[in-house]
Amino acid sequence: MNHQALKQEIHAADQAINNKDFDAVAKFYTNEATLVVRPGLLAYGRSDIKEAHKRISEYFNGSLEVSQGGMVIIEAGNTALVLAKTFVKSPEKLDSEYSTERDAIYVYVKDDNGKWLCAIDNSYGVELLQKNA
Amino acid sequence: MNHQALKQEIHAADQAINNKDFDAVAKFYTNEATLVVRPGLLAYGRSDIKEAHKRISEYFNGSLEVSQGGMVIIEAGNTALVLAKTFVKSPEKLDSEYSTERDAIYVYVKDDNGKWLCAIDNSYGVELLQKNA
Repeated sequence: MNHQALKQEIHAADQAINNKDFDAVAKFYTNEATLVVRPGLLAYGRSDIKEAHKRISEYFNGSLEVSQGGMVIIEAGNTALVLAKTFVKSPEKLDSEYSTERDAIYVYVKDDNGKWLCAIDNSYGVELLQKNA
Repeated sequence: MNHQALKQEIHAADQAINNKDFDAVAKFYTNEATLVVRPGLLAYGRSDIKEAHKRISEYFNGSLEVSQGGMVIIEAGNTALVLAKTFVKSPEKLDSEYSTERDAIYVYVKDDNGKWLCAIDNSYGVELLQKNA
């Protein structure tokens, strides 16, 4: 499987984030999606996720540039696990306490029209386990 | 959320693996599930996953003991991402090339009866990204 459709959704979502088009960003998620805003803080549902992305953008002084490097995608029916080397650049926010290179974990689900939507967006990956330890 | 129902399924699946009850093991997965047997080798569907678990058990000379330490569970509707510190002991196979302590990643989905089933079982976690790099 080359996972082209799913990769395109991820790339388009990154573009929407980088363009600060938060209405567009929200549409890449399921209605019941969960976003890990930062370790210990989750946003639930499209509306809260949209607001969270706005706040994340403000935290990075509007200079956030997200992109993905190597990806491993594992599909299982209408569900997919995405492991991604994620790059978080923010030229106007150089003192962020969060990593600029992350091993992110995303869970996508296919809707009734065959479109992949993000159900769980965890750019911190297994780092959350260490915080929990 | 305390995620008790999901944790019970994971614990019960570990017990079935440790008891070498592979018919029971297969029932913890969705029909379309994907198991990462080892980096680079996937098993698709309950039947192949059952056979893969038999072969994994044989590799460990029938001495495999799987258990989970700390877990982080992120739910989103009928989908859940599980990050787990997983311990893989095998007293009769001490020269395995695979880690005995792993940051595993599982994706669970809830079926129509509200029962959690494993859709994606990746005990190697983001290690797959490094192999892919």
